Amino acid sequence: MKRVAERLLVAGVGLIGGSLALALRRAGAVGEVVGLGRSEQNLRVARARGIIDRIERDPCRAARGVDLVVVAVPVGAIAPVVRALAPALPPEAVITDAGSVKGPVVRAVERALGTTAGRFCGAHPIAGTEDSGAAAAADDLLRGERCVLTPTRATRPATVRRVRALWKAAGMRVETMGLAEHDAIFALVSHLPHLAAFALVGAVADAGRARRALAFAAGGFRDGTRVAASSPEMWTDILLANRAQVLAALGRFERSCEGLRGAIARGDRRRLLAVLARARGVRRRLTRPPAGARRRS
Amino acid sequence: MKRVAERLLVAGVGLIGGSLALALRRAGAVGEVVGLGRSEQNLRVARARGIIDRIERDPCRAARGVDLVVVAVPVGAIAPVVRALAPALPPEAVITDAGSVKGPVVRAVERALGTTAGRFCGAHPIAGTEDSGAAAAADDLLRGERCVLTPTRATRPATVRRVRALWKAAGMRVETMGLAEHDAIFALVSHLPHLAAFALVGAVADAGRARRALAFAAGGFRDGTRVAASSPEMWTDILLANRAQVLAALGRFERSCEGLRGAIARGDRRRLLAVLARARGVRRRLTRPPAGARRRS
Repeated sequence: MKRVAERLLVAGVGLIGGSLALALRRAGAVGEVVGLGRSEQNLRVARARGIIDRIERDPCRAARGVDLVVVAVPVGAIAPVVRALAPALPPEAVITDAGSVKGPVVRAVERALGTTAGRFCGAHPIAGTEDSGAAAAADDLLRGERCVLTPTRATRPATVRRVRALWKAAGMRVETMGLAEHDAIFALVSHLPHLAAFALVGAVADAGRARRALAFAAGGFRDGTRVAASSPEMWTDILLANRAQVLAALGRFERSCEGLRGAIARGDRRRLLAVLARARGVRRRLTRPPAGARRRS
Repeated sequence: MKRVAERLLVAGVGLIGGSLALALRRAGAVGEVVGLGRSEQNLRVARARGIIDRIERDPCRAARGVDLVVVAVPVGAIAPVVRALAPALPPEAVITDAGSVKGPVVRAVERALGTTAGRFCGAHPIAGTEDSGAAAAADDLLRGERCVLTPTRATRPATVRRVRALWKAAGMRVETMGLAEHDAIFALVSHLPHLAAFALVGAVADAGRARRALAFAAGGFRDGTRVAASSPEMWTDILLANRAQVLAALGRFERSCEGLRGAIARGDRRRLLAVLARARGVRRRLTRPPAGARRRS
């Protein structure tokens, strides 16, 4: 495979950044991989696992001679990291990210880059598990999954091409979307389910007999709350960054709960059956998850 | 293995009733198995799969010469089925059920049986998938899972012993619980997660770009809503039968969502992080699901 980068900088060598690097290495699509991060320990794990060749703690040193940068840090840190790297990057280097929220992030990055905003193209690889860190990275995590690119009017076409090639080299199915549409859609199908999972666990944990109740938690609760085991820092960042869309999605959900509450309280069997049957129909039409999807308990 | 029944009547040969019969057969714990049900087609599937030996459509004929009855029908139908069977059952026959709600069901069954209420012991096998019917039954579905018995002051000790032996013979870990405690616990860890899953799917289906959004639904949404593919009839019954406890659990959940909404709206990072971190801690302490747990997309 043709190389997508001679020297790739992965800023944030966690589950996604690490899995991307592993996939690119396996595909022979990258020369040297430099890892930049806050946690020395995590970077050592990454180097020991062959995810990165070299550890850097300083953004200016990390940026030297790099031709492609992936910023795979929590969404709140993406623009600050880009700002720190930009002055030391070679002029031909392009930048992408892996954030689950795009509007505020992409706008902040473009502000940080100013006249060189054309070298950045936002990306959202739709993959992950509730685990995190370089230790959880896997070379097949991204394979077959979708990656949404969100170029703007500021993005250079050449940047989009190179960033597309990068994620494709990791086996992803790449498509593009507008910032607003991306954030509205993922508020519904990703951020809201996470919020609901955190709220479900919280509701049970607050109950009087929480410990005994949890001992009887079976498939419905376990599956429904699996993602509540995800990183609280990462999800705090996401929920706050996509605040408006998340609150709108939560509003829809609350009305949906409200409707069910009313039907149950009134003993309205016909209405309840109709709501449940419709939900089942929608859910059954979802096909099986792609091969790369992980499940843990 | 010693037989737990010479002639077992399974009223409702669905996922649970069928899986129980298969497990008992495999263990050599049962003589003849008679299947009673409304759907001729489902009963034919059950006979073809070797789940039952004989099909009966009439309760009085089905009850003849039976020494153990399992009523594995939706919770709203359990007491009516017991009422129809009781007059034709031999005096030594004991009855159990497989309902997910116990208080209202057990009380209705005991009223239906009157002076012979001592022959009934309620049971709730904690197992299942979102599939239903004899076609979905499996001889290992119940193995290793918990089964809660809910004997009352009316239940004869001999009944409890025989019903315990029945579920144990299918490989289940049997324990007992009071009616009120059972219904409060399962409202939290089972009925509420199902309700939330139905509401989540409903919220997304109601959104403007539902079809496009669902195309991007990944692990969080898929796992979180898996149980929304469950039988609407069965779940309408459960939610209405356990109405008071379900509404109480839903109230807890709504307050939990409310708390998250407030923290997000205020941009209260510290609070949000604390709520998410607590939920993650609780969720991580849940161990892996038992071997028999099924997952489908």
